[in-house]
Amino acid sequence: MTVTVDETTENTIDVLDRGFLALDGAFASDLAVVNAARVSFNIASEEMSERDEGLIRFLMRERHGTPFEHGYFRFLVKAPLFVVREHHRHRAGHSYNEWSGRYSKLEAEFYVPDNVRTQVGKPGAYTFEPVEPGVRDATREEIEAAAEAAFASYERMLDLGVAKEVARTVLPLAMYTKYFWSCNPRSLMHFCSLRNSEHAQFEIREYARAAESFLERLMPVTHAAFIANGRSAP
Amino acid sequence: MTVTVDETTENTIDVLDRGFLALDGAFASDLAVVNAARVSFNIASEEMSERDEGLIRFLMRERHGTPFEHGYFRFLVKAPLFVVREHHRHRAGHSYNEWSGRYSKLEAEFYVPDNVRTQVGKPGAYTFEPVEPGVRDATREEIEAAAEAAFASYERMLDLGVAKEVARTVLPLAMYTKYFWSCNPRSLMHFCSLRNSEHAQFEIREYARAAESFLERLMPVTHAAFIANGRSAP
Amino acid sequence: MTVTVDETTENTIDVLDRGFLALDGAFASDLAVVNAARVSFNIASEEMSERDEGLIRFLMRERHGTPFEHGYFRFLVKAPLFVVREHHRHRAGHSYNEWSGRYSKLEAEFYVPDNVRTQVGKPGAYTFEPVEPGVRDATREEIEAAAEAAFASYERMLDLGVAKEVARTVLPLAMYTKYFWSCNPRSLMHFCSLRNSEHAQFEIREYARAAESFLERLMPVTHAAFIANGRSAP
Amino acid sequence: MTVTVDETTENTIDVLDRGFLALDGAFASDLAVVNAARVSFNIASEEMSERDEGLIRFLMRERHGTPFEHGYFRFLVKAPLFVVREHHRHRAGHSYNEWSGRYSKLEAEFYVPDNVRTQVGKPGAYTFEPVEPGVRDATREEIEAAAEAAFASYERMLDLGVAKEVARTVLPLAMYTKYFWSCNPRSLMHFCSLRNSEHAQFEIREYARAAESFLERLMPVTHAAFIANGRSAP
Repeated sequence: MTVTVDETTENTIDVLDRGFLALDGAFASDLAVVNAARVSFNIASEEMSERDEGLIRFLMRERHGTPFEHGYFRFLVKAPLFVVREHHRHRAGHSYNEWSGRYSKLEAEFYVPDNVRTQVGKPGAYTFEPVEPGVRDATREEIEAAAEAAFASYERMLDLGVAKEVARTVLPLAMYTKYFWSCNPRSLMHFCSLRNSEHAQFEIREYARAAESFLERLMPVTHAAFIANGRSAP
Repeated sequence: MTVTVDETTENTIDVLDRGFLALDGAFASDLAVVNAARVSFNIASEEMSERDEGLIRFLMRERHGTPFEHGYFRFLVKAPLFVVREHHRHRAGHSYNEWSGRYSKLEAEFYVPDNVRTQVGKPGAYTFEPVEPGVRDATREEIEAAAEAAFASYERMLDLGVAKEVARTVLPLAMYTKYFWSCNPRSLMHFCSLRNSEHAQFEIREYARAAESFLERLMPVTHAAFIANGRSAP
Repeated sequence: MTVTVDETTENTIDVLDRGFLALDGAFASDLAVVNAARVSFNIASEEMSERDEGLIRFLMRERHGTPFEHGYFRFLVKAPLFVVREHHRHRAGHSYNEWSGRYSKLEAEFYVPDNVRTQVGKPGAYTFEPVEPGVRDATREEIEAAAEAAFASYERMLDLGVAKEVARTVLPLAMYTKYFWSCNPRSLMHFCSLRNSEHAQFEIREYARAAESFLERLMPVTHAAFIANGRSAP
Repeated sequence: MTVTVDETTENTIDVLDRGFLALDGAFASDLAVVNAARVSFNIASEEMSERDEGLIRFLMRERHGTPFEHGYFRFLVKAPLFVVREHHRHRAGHSYNEWSGRYSKLEAEFYVPDNVRTQVGKPGAYTFEPVEPGVRDATREEIEAAAEAAFASYERMLDLGVAKEVARTVLPLAMYTKYFWSCNPRSLMHFCSLRNSEHAQFEIREYARAAESFLERLMPVTHAAFIANGRSAP
């Protein structure tokens, strides 16, 4: 009735220059959606039928969300802090545990974007376009130099005996961290509807695309209905 | 890293006279708790050690709850309506889908208690004691007769062509229903701390005991720490 | 910046034959939505402008939900149990405390519908139509008689000394109960989008209409945008 | 039945060197707790009595949490990013909207600690002690210099036409931001139990102390019971 995916390299997707999203495990299936819905009629399916596929499309379209809560995904994520700050705003149906800079020394890994862009258009209708190669290189150098200078400052304070929780305050939002993320299919779709979207910042969108690919792999009918519904989560 | 339990008869526990609680599937382990906690130091365990067991006891005692959210249990439950009403008050980290009386005809199955009791003591300090055999028999007859009369009334209204959603309003709280219930280890412990308790009503306690036995089976270290902590959930 | 409504009779709306929905208090305004949204630009409004109204319509349309969470409504509700069971399924952003039949004797008040209907059409496309007057009268008599018989049985068991928590199991879903309900504007809109809907059962829809009228009174711009958006909650 | 506090200067508490926590509004009272609890017996209080105070102490001690959900606090907070990251982990019953660096330019305001400390002791039993004056001054200079260098780098990239959402990635965790925070009395107590604690980092503890002072002001009986219960939230 369910598909279980264990940790293997095929479950790790590289994201950005140094990050990744790995499916650490899952217990999720289209059939669980169907059965959670059919229990309202006191009936169950043993395997997916065409009618069951139609039911999932119906549930998605009519925004009957609760049957999509009966599943589970657990990811291990490595992402820059500014991405994590956006990610962790998602609350209902999401759980997180993250690497802490209070008691362990952080590592000198920073996101340096390939995709350097400029913002064009008016408030409410911004779009982004790549910058000139010269600006791109200058930006990458700025970010790299700023990150290295900050990390050097961090280490100097640690050498002085300053507590890690104080010294870390100089570290930049480009720094990578790691965290476990658990969610259910419904909360995963909410995340993807907001973050695998043209309105989302490029970097978090890369993580959302990676996460959505696991939804597609484990729950193909649900994912197809989600796409057909314009990525509007139920 | 995880234990997966598929639907088999050994995963169904009979509860009360006609009810049950069945583990429909799970993805839960003590190791996932440990790794969710250890990610704060950017380290991981591959299998449980004695130190890991100590960590789980520490997390439970200090009420660090989030590492216990990275797991999943899905149950199929058959229970009387008055139990369901108490159960579904548990919100954070719990998902439910239930048999609906709006579009399908309900079945004539009712809870008739073996354990008929009387309430003794003063407000705030009630306890319950078994009634005399004669009162017990009279009570069982009352409940059975009332349930049958209500169901007969329900069927008469259906025969008149009245909508199921109207006719069902005469049905009693003793009637059995069915539902899927998903939760994580932390929300399961919250449920058990309040409902597998001497303060809980006998009937829901039977369901909580059954649910807790699956926590014990899949996450023995977590369960032992939960018990050692006086069933106070983290 | 806020509107506070204290308990007065004008805040009580009669619902069904013996129920009500009363606004027990609120702290909610359109301006709070605007300011929660404008904080992303580090600016604030002191009173609503036309531009602010446009902002609320934009947030609703684009499903930016979080700015609608910064407000509060508290209701006291009297409703039949079958309505309460549907209501309390709404979890995120909702809080409830209800009259308990474990320790206090319940009262003989039951919902007897004026609006007796029959269900027509096929699964997935049901509609409801009024029954003939004769069927309506027969149904009302059935429900009234069943409720009275159940309550008499309840009282006989109490007279025998049986615990209230056991005796109450014969009581029907038509019985009235009371509860406090707290929510925020966003969770209130989610409730209204699902329950003030033609797909919802007539009786809960009456409660949702009443609740929505308080949203309209305290947050008129938000409510107008909600309606313009087809009652699709952000 | 409720106390409403409007925005005035007396509702703003300065926190750290440049931050604050301001009560933007509230709708909260001890009486609402009492009435949410007493509705289980279908009774209500019009004003607090000694018995009502005892009831609140009982609810707190026995961890009956739901009656504490029927109230509302809304704060406007200015805090450094590393504090915000800890704060926003609190999910159930909390809502946030924050200043965004995607579309508006951030300001050069950074937290430079007076309280520079060193970490002593072993893992699991750390404590913090002030550093020598020389180390303190060197640390303050490090943090100030690092923040200024990062902000200069941010501005250089903006001058090059780089999108704000890219340029901001060099900014440090010491930078101040602003956000609205809504919660209920129960979720506020959960926050205070974890963050107004000797285990919490000094800086977030300052915010938690400020927030707790508003709980004390508006719900004095609840706050006293919370303290008597060792700040263990119900």
